[in-house]
Amino acid sequence: MLRLYGSRWSPNAKRVALVLLEKQVRFEAVEVDMINREHKNVSYVAKQPFAEVPYIDDEGLVLYESRAICRYICKKYPNQGTPLVPAEDDLRAYGLFEQAASVEIYNFDVHVQAAAYESVVKPALGMKTNKANYEKHLKTLGQKLDIYDSILARQRFITGDEISLVDLFHIPYAVELEDAGCDIMNTRPNVARWWKELKARPSWQAVKETIGSSP
Amino acid sequence: MLRLYGSRWSPNAKRVALVLLEKQVRFEAVEVDMINREHKNVSYVAKQPFAEVPYIDDEGLVLYESRAICRYICKKYPNQGTPLVPAEDDLRAYGLFEQAASVEIYNFDVHVQAAAYESVVKPALGMKTNKANYEKHLKTLGQKLDIYDSILARQRFITGDEISLVDLFHIPYAVELEDAGCDIMNTRPNVARWWKELKARPSWQAVKETIGSSP
Repeated sequence: MLRLYGSRWSPNAKRVALVLLEKQVRFEAVEVDMINREHKNVSYVAKQPFAEVPYIDDEGLVLYESRAICRYICKKYPNQGTPLVPAEDDLRAYGLFEQAASVEIYNFDVHVQAAAYESVVKPALGMKTNKANYEKHLKTLGQKLDIYDSILARQRFITGDEISLVDLFHIPYAVELEDAGCDIMNTRPNVARWWKELKARPSWQAVKETIGSSP
Repeated sequence: MLRLYGSRWSPNAKRVALVLLEKQVRFEAVEVDMINREHKNVSYVAKQPFAEVPYIDDEGLVLYESRAICRYICKKYPNQGTPLVPAEDDLRAYGLFEQAASVEIYNFDVHVQAAAYESVVKPALGMKTNKANYEKHLKTLGQKLDIYDSILARQRFITGDEISLVDLFHIPYAVELEDAGCDIMNTRPNVARWWKELKARPSWQAVKETIGSSP
């Protein structure tokens, strides 16, 4: 069976669990003890040389980087669970999917991740939040969400009118930020509508039951 | 004919030109006047809502985000020019390609881009370099390149033994940094061997002739 080496502390591991659940792929969740830095051990680094969480072992194929794992799962199980990538022969849909995938990384993730690092990770590790850095990334994130709002005024999801991997990729870090009291996902009408629909997916509710949620 | 709206100032535009040349796709390069902020104009933003360079117009299909455009080109022309993506039916190769694609973004690009911003872009705009920020990203980039070196000790390119899109994606920002006097790409044996081979590709030499090079 596919094994997901992750952690309830890791939004990136939750991203993979979420997609495995959407694709109805059975898997075993293995908790990596990040508090005791298990991911820095020699035996772990032999699997994931960058010493990060998560990776999967799919019957001997070891793969890391959460978005790569999710794409691999969709390629392996095209006719199972939710269709989350465009049809293989639809070139235009493929281009728009890849466009959205890059937008998620460069216009959303880098800022939401930096903001969550300041407001969630640092306090959890007993470090002091750099408020100026937090505000800087939140401000940029807001500017990007203004553009998201104009895109989501024209289509239901971020790639088009069907849900895709890219929509799901937004969930884990945005939930971290929201749980820390940040309301940014709810202050623009179309983003708020989209965000409400994403968070309510049964797959996201089930992630907590499969790999746990950060305390 | 495909039109590339780019700029000789933009490493991201050079990434697209590089891949178009490798795939032997004829295109017309249209210079966006970034100095006069043409990319912030209403007519430009109608095409690229995030007001960034580049985008393409491929017979009416408008697409932005450089890596997405490159993937789209490879999908459209599978049997033309250099093969730069794995065969459609090779699931393992696909997984490893996507793994490398994410590694490039999160372990290389974010740091090389931040370092180039401090040492190239800011001086060009008459702004003061934040040396601490430059050193921080260069230090992290060095740590990541140590891991790259161990990967490249086992294989010729970053995805495996064949060149791929992901190798090419590394070139434009690393050249910016090197042209500004930074030697980081040449200080680890396997990275240096790989880097020398990448830079020497005729396609990269030809990029300067097609969209120009930053002054």
